[in-house]
Amino acid sequence: MPASHIAPRRPGLYLISPSSAVADLAALDRAVERLRALGHPVAQDRAARGVHQRFAGTDRQRVAGVHRALKQKHPVVMATRGGYGLSRILPAIDWQAVADSGKIFVGLSDFTAFNLALLARTGARSYSGPTAVFDFGAAQVNELTRDLFEETLSGELQVLSFEAPDADAVDTRGVLWGGNLAMVASLLGTPYFPQIERGILFLEDIGEHPFRIERMLTQLWHAGVLHKQQAIVLGQFTGYRLAPHDNGFDLAAVVHWLRQTVRVPVVTGLPYGHGRIKATLPVGATVGLATEQGMAHLLLHEHEHSALHEPGHSAHDGD
Amino acid sequence: MPASHIAPRRPGLYLISPSSAVADLAALDRAVERLRALGHPVAQDRAARGVHQRFAGTDRQRVAGVHRALKQKHPVVMATRGGYGLSRILPAIDWQAVADSGKIFVGLSDFTAFNLALLARTGARSYSGPTAVFDFGAAQVNELTRDLFEETLSGELQVLSFEAPDADAVDTRGVLWGGNLAMVASLLGTPYFPQIERGILFLEDIGEHPFRIERMLTQLWHAGVLHKQQAIVLGQFTGYRLAPHDNGFDLAAVVHWLRQTVRVPVVTGLPYGHGRIKATLPVGATVGLATEQGMAHLLLHEHEHSALHEPGHSAHDGD
Repeated sequence: MPASHIAPRRPGLYLISPSSAVADLAALDRAVERLRALGHPVAQDRAARGVHQRFAGTDRQRVAGVHRALKQKHPVVMATRGGYGLSRILPAIDWQAVADSGKIFVGLSDFTAFNLALLARTGARSYSGPTAVFDFGAAQVNELTRDLFEETLSGELQVLSFEAPDADAVDTRGVLWGGNLAMVASLLGTPYFPQIERGILFLEDIGEHPFRIERMLTQLWHAGVLHKQQAIVLGQFTGYRLAPHDNGFDLAAVVHWLRQTVRVPVVTGLPYGHGRIKATLPVGATVGLATEQGMAHLLLHEHEHSALHEPGHSAHDGD
Repeated sequence: MPASHIAPRRPGLYLISPSSAVADLAALDRAVERLRALGHPVAQDRAARGVHQRFAGTDRQRVAGVHRALKQKHPVVMATRGGYGLSRILPAIDWQAVADSGKIFVGLSDFTAFNLALLARTGARSYSGPTAVFDFGAAQVNELTRDLFEETLSGELQVLSFEAPDADAVDTRGVLWGGNLAMVASLLGTPYFPQIERGILFLEDIGEHPFRIERMLTQLWHAGVLHKQQAIVLGQFTGYRLAPHDNGFDLAAVVHWLRQTVRVPVVTGLPYGHGRIKATLPVGATVGLATEQGMAHLLLHEHEHSALHEPGHSAHDGD
């Protein structure tokens, strides 16, 4: 290929809006440009810019967008944004068709419902990570978020290492799963909650007071979920406000309570959440996790190939 | 009894603080005076005014308060307030001892965890209604709330009637259960969630945006809970703020969606919630529910005697 100054050829992206309406269409335009400049062919679902109440279209329209994504040519399907809207359309999505499509879905926050429902119903993997509008439509794209996205999808990234000065000692492996804590808790007791034993549960949230974070963790505890995990990995918990009557009850108090209550190693510091810097995490993949000297290492390729070279994505599978 | 000018003799109250710390101790003092003036002997648990972080004492202290309430002489045990704190002490409470004590527990909001855990673990009844500080410690006690409390506990109140212009037609009976929606949802998937078939589910909440209300209802829907009920009765949902991007998605839209989604009669208008006017509702009792001409009627005594004349409370059971 002579045009060496052209951006590297990267997997095509198809953008869908299964949750809230995109309020900032200019940011979506910027995201499309940026992703193309990075070398991704980009197509938008015809309902990606829809609006119905606070949703990106009616339930039927958003479900149709998900199903159209299975039949188009690009291997990666990215949510334009999170917000709210997946919960109520979960029963209308053909999960087996999603799994059979081999498409690589990625999104954040509300998209946790998609990640976990897919895992619960089929065992298939998807990704929690950047969204088009917030991460690629921002005034400035965070380079680390961008690189982690590209290198995780391509399989280049073997180990995600991060500073974890408050981590319990751990050296284990298991199925990586989780996402937004409010969404994880909102699936408990439903057929969309994955039954993962000896997994590695990662969590983040925004705008939830520590007492709500603790209440949601308590629900997972009482439901028997936390005890079954090999490790609990905490990302960013941001955007809440403490009050004087909290009287020393803060996020650190919640983490302390969690450690006292559940005898499972807790690792903090995961670069993941509603901030600018976020990893792209494979939900449903078997990964390794080890801590040493104030660092934590997430080994993304335990006996596996990259997402883009799995069955359904290899160049030679005739798909 | 010659002193006819003295307040009527009413059941003794024992005040406990299983959740958040009482911030306004003067209001608690007022509540004690008011309840005494109404004819109730009143005793306060020795930890009722405790403070630990945002809680009314450590977990151990709050659990001990609940257990002390079982062994003292007053038949009614009232929570000073709600807030947050019951979730994490649920496994430490001796539910069978609570049921066997025959004490009449009443509280609101966070206390929903107590009401439902007791029902789930033992089938015993308790009450959702006023709390000492908010309702009896207020600058002015709401007379309707006060009367509904007294008349429900005494068994005088046979039928709670309320305006329900938006009610679906219903004429049924079943186990009354529910409370604060966030607390109900927070118990799903845990051993503290009652498995009630053909019940009458009542719900209220404060400070939850309609999308969160809907998400919690969606969880109950996906968990198969809503379809099993004879009716869903909605109290007050207050203290949230809509945003321009909600774009017509409001509480009415949620109720509309609920009716479209779950083929169970919905009754709105129940005087119950975080407002000043609230009914005292027997959680776990079999009640009747009927609507006619814009009114709903909750029949509190379907084949039952009053709370104060049940086994464990009658004057002649030697207890």
